[in-house]
Amino acid sequence: MAAKLKTAILGATGYSGLELTRILERHPRVEKPLLLQRPSDGANGNTGNGALHLEEIFPELSGNGEYPLHVLSWRELKRQGVELLFLATPHEASRALAPEVIAQGLRVIDLSGAWRLKQERHRAIYGFADADEARAATLMEQAIYGLPELNADCIKKAQLVANPGCYATSVILALAPLLSAGVIDREHGIISDSKSGVSGAGKSPTARTHFVAVADNLSAYSVFEHRHLGEIAEQLGLKDEQMTFTPHLLPIPRGILSTIYLRLNRAMSGAEIEQCLREFYAQKNWVRVFPAMKLPQLRFSLHTNYCDLGFCLADDCRRLVMVSCLDNLLKGAAGQAVQNMNWMFGWDEREGLQ
Amino acid sequence: MAAKLKTAILGATGYSGLELTRILERHPRVEKPLLLQRPSDGANGNTGNGALHLEEIFPELSGNGEYPLHVLSWRELKRQGVELLFLATPHEASRALAPEVIAQGLRVIDLSGAWRLKQERHRAIYGFADADEARAATLMEQAIYGLPELNADCIKKAQLVANPGCYATSVILALAPLLSAGVIDREHGIISDSKSGVSGAGKSPTARTHFVAVADNLSAYSVFEHRHLGEIAEQLGLKDEQMTFTPHLLPIPRGILSTIYLRLNRAMSGAEIEQCLREFYAQKNWVRVFPAMKLPQLRFSLHTNYCDLGFCLADDCRRLVMVSCLDNLLKGAAGQAVQNMNWMFGWDEREGLQ
Amino acid sequence: MAAKLKTAILGATGYSGLELTRILERHPRVEKPLLLQRPSDGANGNTGNGALHLEEIFPELSGNGEYPLHVLSWRELKRQGVELLFLATPHEASRALAPEVIAQGLRVIDLSGAWRLKQERHRAIYGFADADEARAATLMEQAIYGLPELNADCIKKAQLVANPGCYATSVILALAPLLSAGVIDREHGIISDSKSGVSGAGKSPTARTHFVAVADNLSAYSVFEHRHLGEIAEQLGLKDEQMTFTPHLLPIPRGILSTIYLRLNRAMSGAEIEQCLREFYAQKNWVRVFPAMKLPQLRFSLHTNYCDLGFCLADDCRRLVMVSCLDNLLKGAAGQAVQNMNWMFGWDEREGLQ
Amino acid sequence: MAAKLKTAILGATGYSGLELTRILERHPRVEKPLLLQRPSDGANGNTGNGALHLEEIFPELSGNGEYPLHVLSWRELKRQGVELLFLATPHEASRALAPEVIAQGLRVIDLSGAWRLKQERHRAIYGFADADEARAATLMEQAIYGLPELNADCIKKAQLVANPGCYATSVILALAPLLSAGVIDREHGIISDSKSGVSGAGKSPTARTHFVAVADNLSAYSVFEHRHLGEIAEQLGLKDEQMTFTPHLLPIPRGILSTIYLRLNRAMSGAEIEQCLREFYAQKNWVRVFPAMKLPQLRFSLHTNYCDLGFCLADDCRRLVMVSCLDNLLKGAAGQAVQNMNWMFGWDEREGLQ
Repeated sequence: MAAKLKTAILGATGYSGLELTRILERHPRVEKPLLLQRPSDGANGNTGNGALHLEEIFPELSGNGEYPLHVLSWRELKRQGVELLFLATPHEASRALAPEVIAQGLRVIDLSGAWRLKQERHRAIYGFADADEARAATLMEQAIYGLPELNADCIKKAQLVANPGCYATSVILALAPLLSAGVIDREHGIISDSKSGVSGAGKSPTARTHFVAVADNLSAYSVFEHRHLGEIAEQLGLKDEQMTFTPHLLPIPRGILSTIYLRLNRAMSGAEIEQCLREFYAQKNWVRVFPAMKLPQLRFSLHTNYCDLGFCLADDCRRLVMVSCLDNLLKGAAGQAVQNMNWMFGWDEREGLQ
Repeated sequence: MAAKLKTAILGATGYSGLELTRILERHPRVEKPLLLQRPSDGANGNTGNGALHLEEIFPELSGNGEYPLHVLSWRELKRQGVELLFLATPHEASRALAPEVIAQGLRVIDLSGAWRLKQERHRAIYGFADADEARAATLMEQAIYGLPELNADCIKKAQLVANPGCYATSVILALAPLLSAGVIDREHGIISDSKSGVSGAGKSPTARTHFVAVADNLSAYSVFEHRHLGEIAEQLGLKDEQMTFTPHLLPIPRGILSTIYLRLNRAMSGAEIEQCLREFYAQKNWVRVFPAMKLPQLRFSLHTNYCDLGFCLADDCRRLVMVSCLDNLLKGAAGQAVQNMNWMFGWDEREGLQ
Repeated sequence: MAAKLKTAILGATGYSGLELTRILERHPRVEKPLLLQRPSDGANGNTGNGALHLEEIFPELSGNGEYPLHVLSWRELKRQGVELLFLATPHEASRALAPEVIAQGLRVIDLSGAWRLKQERHRAIYGFADADEARAATLMEQAIYGLPELNADCIKKAQLVANPGCYATSVILALAPLLSAGVIDREHGIISDSKSGVSGAGKSPTARTHFVAVADNLSAYSVFEHRHLGEIAEQLGLKDEQMTFTPHLLPIPRGILSTIYLRLNRAMSGAEIEQCLREFYAQKNWVRVFPAMKLPQLRFSLHTNYCDLGFCLADDCRRLVMVSCLDNLLKGAAGQAVQNMNWMFGWDEREGLQ
Repeated sequence: MAAKLKTAILGATGYSGLELTRILERHPRVEKPLLLQRPSDGANGNTGNGALHLEEIFPELSGNGEYPLHVLSWRELKRQGVELLFLATPHEASRALAPEVIAQGLRVIDLSGAWRLKQERHRAIYGFADADEARAATLMEQAIYGLPELNADCIKKAQLVANPGCYATSVILALAPLLSAGVIDREHGIISDSKSGVSGAGKSPTARTHFVAVADNLSAYSVFEHRHLGEIAEQLGLKDEQMTFTPHLLPIPRGILSTIYLRLNRAMSGAEIEQCLREFYAQKNWVRVFPAMKLPQLRFSLHTNYCDLGFCLADDCRRLVMVSCLDNLLKGAAGQAVQNMNWMFGWDEREGLQ
């Protein structure tokens, strides 16, 4: 058997980083990942004079060896033979770091939004101030949007994979088959009413993520202006005004359910639609298509890498409601990152994810 | 000061009945209500040989006197001078009982769906088998849909008020102003993606309402076929295919948030829309209009009789997202019933609800 | 009818302050309270150049007039005739402010822990550094522990009432009757295993109060060293080692349930114990004693000012388990503060709390 | 490599059965288990005329092959070479079935309470009416209490393993080391204040498990009389009156946290206690001992087979509070059953559980 791949994670102290750590340490083709922190992260949680350990932040990791965090050092990465670096860092940090990582010869899977958007009109969404604009622009061209169900061929050869947003994954996977089949009335407009658990908002304590603010509550936010809207439109080839996207904050720790509304441009039967979805995902392992009129529930996909798809069709055979569910930390983040890794290194896309 | 009104509640053992009991016992113009059970309810929860008491089922009521449940008897109602009977009973029970109550000379507020739908095409929704079809048909004509913001004049004189559904209230109050102003593109279709807490599903334990099935979850149900769709279409004068309604079950005990999508038939500004809403509800006490682009959260309306309305308008000045929130047991049930009572007896609609 | 009392609240932007605002504005003997902020609070949430309004922080307040926040000014308090000031401020702020308020001739109800502890051995618990130690010591002597079920006579005349801690209220009210009756084996030790909703931890967003940290979780904290242990021991006349107190953080927004373990110093029957509790609380309105072997649940007391007490007795007639429940924001904070006010001004203790 | 073991599960449609199915299908030494239903279960959920499939009840299983349920047949079990049968059935069903399974030559792991209690004084706890009392009595003698940390040697050779109760596991594992070391003052009494998620109450919908009854709530139940008290006393060699056990229902789907109170019979340091725990569990893989004064939280053990133990010691060096956490469906049921299987068949106890 071939030697195992050496990987590193920058940003393992966040929710996605923790999940990634857990998946990689059980992945049969990968060594236990090297955990890195940015020099500036040193103070956070480091209670002693030694190195910070991840199991101090997440005691649930204990009992399984040690998880020391090392300060990022190119020399050390090379010495250890690391070939792949996962960036589980804030958007700005990923934007600043990725060019350097590529220059050092490593391959990168970036879980942030830094490299997902290619179209000029979307430049302003994150408003990055790139130190070297030319280099950033070039890398932007090369970055591959890491949705394996759509882009596996490009992902295989990618140097930089931009791991999709959690909401975006749920919406794109639902719509891709029917858009690809040309049966959606784009001019009518498509709506995704999406609901996410709180881990999607990150680990920083804020007034929004306080337990008392979230429990027994539901709220819509960033209507018409959520950043994932750009990804969705780009990947699906929609004009911005053809897609309405409303995220909501659910009183649950994890999981996304998107309820998607669209109009078919011709009358179709439930069987036709189901067939369209099934054919599109025939060889894909991580999308489960439910029978017509049977809807997935959010919890079915929790703690898995699946995106679950179901739909209901109106009596008029035109109005279609789709439901798409996934675990925002797995298929919406860390799981998808590992799926991308599997493609990049030529392995079965299910490796380490079951 | 005038003598206080005598009322009775049939079905106080359910969630809405409990709320109604609590409101009425504090209402300044009403005596502590007479609590009734149907003869067939006798066995439920009656642990001794005496009368069942509501505080045995809901110990939270204790410390405030006694709440005996009496078997329904017309003679007794008359003897006590009861003028108004609240039916917090299942649809079928309300359908069977209301004609008799009216015949006995009492006024009725029915919290079930038995008398809400008038149009022939909606007859099948509940599929009632009326013992006396003619009498039922006549009463159907006379029954008033008890949404005071729209129908106060009719409610004042009504013998039978059909208290609206919880989802329906949230959707109708959001849409009425703009539909009335004629600015909604009806042909384009309107969508309400609605989410409700579990008390909306009633108190009977079922696989659906088991804590483990609901917690950490979200699920859509009855897509295109929920019964409240009929109410919404009738009250708003929409064709069935103009309204798409998707209810979801939220992991919270109470509260509804409806996210409503529509297209304006002309470009409008946020200020215009806000003004339209504010004017429509200018003299109404139980609708709160939020400023443009400020959305209400579900919990703001909990434990109140308010319906909260807010909206966001897209850059194209055509796509509008509205958010409507209420407490399904208050403005969506018992609170609205009391608001209806206030109108029926000529009182300020706020009495007893603050 | 006498003129209504004028009151002010310093710190209405916290959870207890909000509840207090809501109770006082409906209290029949009190004017809508004047809401105050400390000069240093100016920046928080003040989005415009005008005064901050409480309904901007808590939109659930809207529809009921305005709630402007004023900077604390003695002159203004006097001009408006304010007689009573509620301090819903952090411990240190209350400690620093109360002497000045008293000096200005106002009466004070302090919801913090600043003035609850009298005994020398407990001085270190909060570790206050008093600017004027003599004045603080004097005031410490005068301050009345505001548990009306035990101290009503002193509260009536008090200048400064120290409103009890939420946990402490639940434990003291459970134990006072049996300790007073002399039937508890103190040497054996008493244990309170207490569980609280998250609002008890305050409104500041921290890693501990992040939704993801609390949901689907339970954790014990501050074992043997929680500050309320001092109050409990002082009020009940227990030595510190006779009382073990373990608080836990529950995944709910509000409410406390304390499960209390003790040994009787003689065999007793359930009826005797029930009688002992009932007699002790015979004339008290805000304690509900449950029948022997019927335990209150946490939610029965939510949104009320009740403390609910129940118990189970072992077959050996010695081991007793008591359960005590209350709403930490009401009987555990704002409700009890109003109950104290009612006593201070000679009103029925139920006024405004029903 | 040896042929894989063939196993069967009777009762896979419950929560523990589902977890067991999931673990076994990934276990490297076991074939996908045969799923069985009792003849009487036929009607439940079987919507078609074919066999019921588990993935119809738990759609989260889909995408991973089929899970047909077969009616229990000894002939079929033999034909397929099944050697081990898991009983995830109600107490009464397990009590009636186990003798027959043993007679058929299979080994049994019973997840119910049917065979856990040996002592005469505990016979009444479940009150079984055995058809063949002599056979039941004999089997009772032979049944091994399946807590591998205490009984591994007996489990290895057992024909019938009685898988421990979830609460009992959390309490016994916490207390065994210190009781074994003889440092607990038994006469003083030990208290376990235990809190469990709702899956511990089973999948049947009842008024107690309705979402609205559980959410935002906490309640104690079965004080002094919970069935697990018998197991705890027997396994730890305690007299019944030496152990007080109070279970509570937490508003979370899964997980148990027991807060345990005891008195040492001599002054000890935290380091001594920690050492005692660490030595006791030195070679055990599924107990994690936390450092002195660092308490585990309930969620750390969720979705794992760990039991987490921590403690705090009072200043008097006598009063000890221990905290014990586990996942009631894993270490408290299905995970422990697999750990038992691993011992019964001579494998590493971690197999299939990581």
